[in-house]
Amino acid sequence: MARSQGRVPRLYCEQTLSARSKLTLPREASHYLVTVLRSGDGAVVRLFNAIDGEWQCVISHANRKAAQVICEERLREATPPPDIDYLFAPLKSARLDYLAQKATEMGVRQLRPVITRHTVADKVNLDRLRANAIEAAEQCNMVYVPDVAEPEKLKGVLASWPDDRTLIFCDERAGQANPVDTLKQVKPGPMAVLLGPEGGFSEEERDMILAVPTVVALSLGPRIMRADTAAVAVLALVQSVLGDWCADK
Amino acid sequence: MARSQGRVPRLYCEQTLSARSKLTLPREASHYLVTVLRSGDGAVVRLFNAIDGEWQCVISHANRKAAQVICEERLREATPPPDIDYLFAPLKSARLDYLAQKATEMGVRQLRPVITRHTVADKVNLDRLRANAIEAAEQCNMVYVPDVAEPEKLKGVLASWPDDRTLIFCDERAGQANPVDTLKQVKPGPMAVLLGPEGGFSEEERDMILAVPTVVALSLGPRIMRADTAAVAVLALVQSVLGDWCADK
Repeated sequence: MARSQGRVPRLYCEQTLSARSKLTLPREASHYLVTVLRSGDGAVVRLFNAIDGEWQCVISHANRKAAQVICEERLREATPPPDIDYLFAPLKSARLDYLAQKATEMGVRQLRPVITRHTVADKVNLDRLRANAIEAAEQCNMVYVPDVAEPEKLKGVLASWPDDRTLIFCDERAGQANPVDTLKQVKPGPMAVLLGPEGGFSEEERDMILAVPTVVALSLGPRIMRADTAAVAVLALVQSVLGDWCADK
Repeated sequence: MARSQGRVPRLYCEQTLSARSKLTLPREASHYLVTVLRSGDGAVVRLFNAIDGEWQCVISHANRKAAQVICEERLREATPPPDIDYLFAPLKSARLDYLAQKATEMGVRQLRPVITRHTVADKVNLDRLRANAIEAAEQCNMVYVPDVAEPEKLKGVLASWPDDRTLIFCDERAGQANPVDTLKQVKPGPMAVLLGPEGGFSEEERDMILAVPTVVALSLGPRIMRADTAAVAVLALVQSVLGDWCADK
């Protein structure tokens, strides 16, 4: 879906949105509206964030450097995502962009890069991760953007794993099993999905993961999937069985 | 996974593979092995196709234009994919590449471009679709490559829909419903998944689709997904409930 879908541009906005408030948009958003879309005074724009929801706004003063808008009407409340964190070993840049977009589209609360022994990317550009998450949320009509956490070492993450958060471990070496049945045995509540780097986890890492009290190992099926494919595939199953992609929840 | 994963290059090969047969590889494969990977005489390479399976071969004469190999030993039988066709409205090029790769990784029998009223791409490069499917099969350790069908108009496809093939219709406008429960009601057998263009199906198209006797409308959940994301998400569900991503099948 294009940013301008339904003709009205839709942008994430960190500032507070409330009735009749006047905002000066940041330079990048102003540039996008005024220079790219050629929106002038009186043009309508939708702004959203995870606290104030989505608002219909009108441009009161179009300026390339700093467009001003007035908030008119709240269109939607913010919709918090299911409490699913997504833990992943960072990939090289293009596939990491894709992974951040896709995990956002699939509805996760937080993107958490974890550094593992076989992680191929040695640096993580958090601004870029966040920009990808924002772009996906803007395009996919979501009224929140997942948080992007600082990278952490896997060992530290596991050592302080909270008692109440189920850890769904995507285990390439698990015996083949029905993933729907596996997920149906998980009790509802806070969750996280952990997916490894392209080279897989080391033996020691796998043992540490399987020692977490709330761990559930999930089979990834008969085919090898690339990490960005597996992200979408596994989150589709988790959302369908335990998240919000079903009528019962 | 890189092509050279496990050090031994792995390539799709249309020629017949059998014990002690001598093959001259096509120019592109020869170039990849000899110039890119710098494989010389005596180097091992794995070749596969959907009929003869996967073979360990040895380069008998390395030449940039036409490397010769000798087939030594069959490593794996061909593994036919689940009988799931993937019908999709073509996207613009980069996302179409991605879609072809992803649908291949998710295990479909055939990629079928269908032209709909709101299809954004007016031409389909079948060679490129096929090259993407082959690359995904090579990288994901599969011993088949999905067929790539000629583009057809949706109307014609639906008019001659076979009685015995379930049509799983990814319907953005279906009321929200548990997708696992929906899929569990499908009887095993030949299947197809149909996903529309970014602008959705027209009213008339939707009526035609829903009039197919074997149609099953599948809810896509509470978020808008881009078409290439939806491809992976829906195929993950179909493979988990009806395909080969579970132990029971």
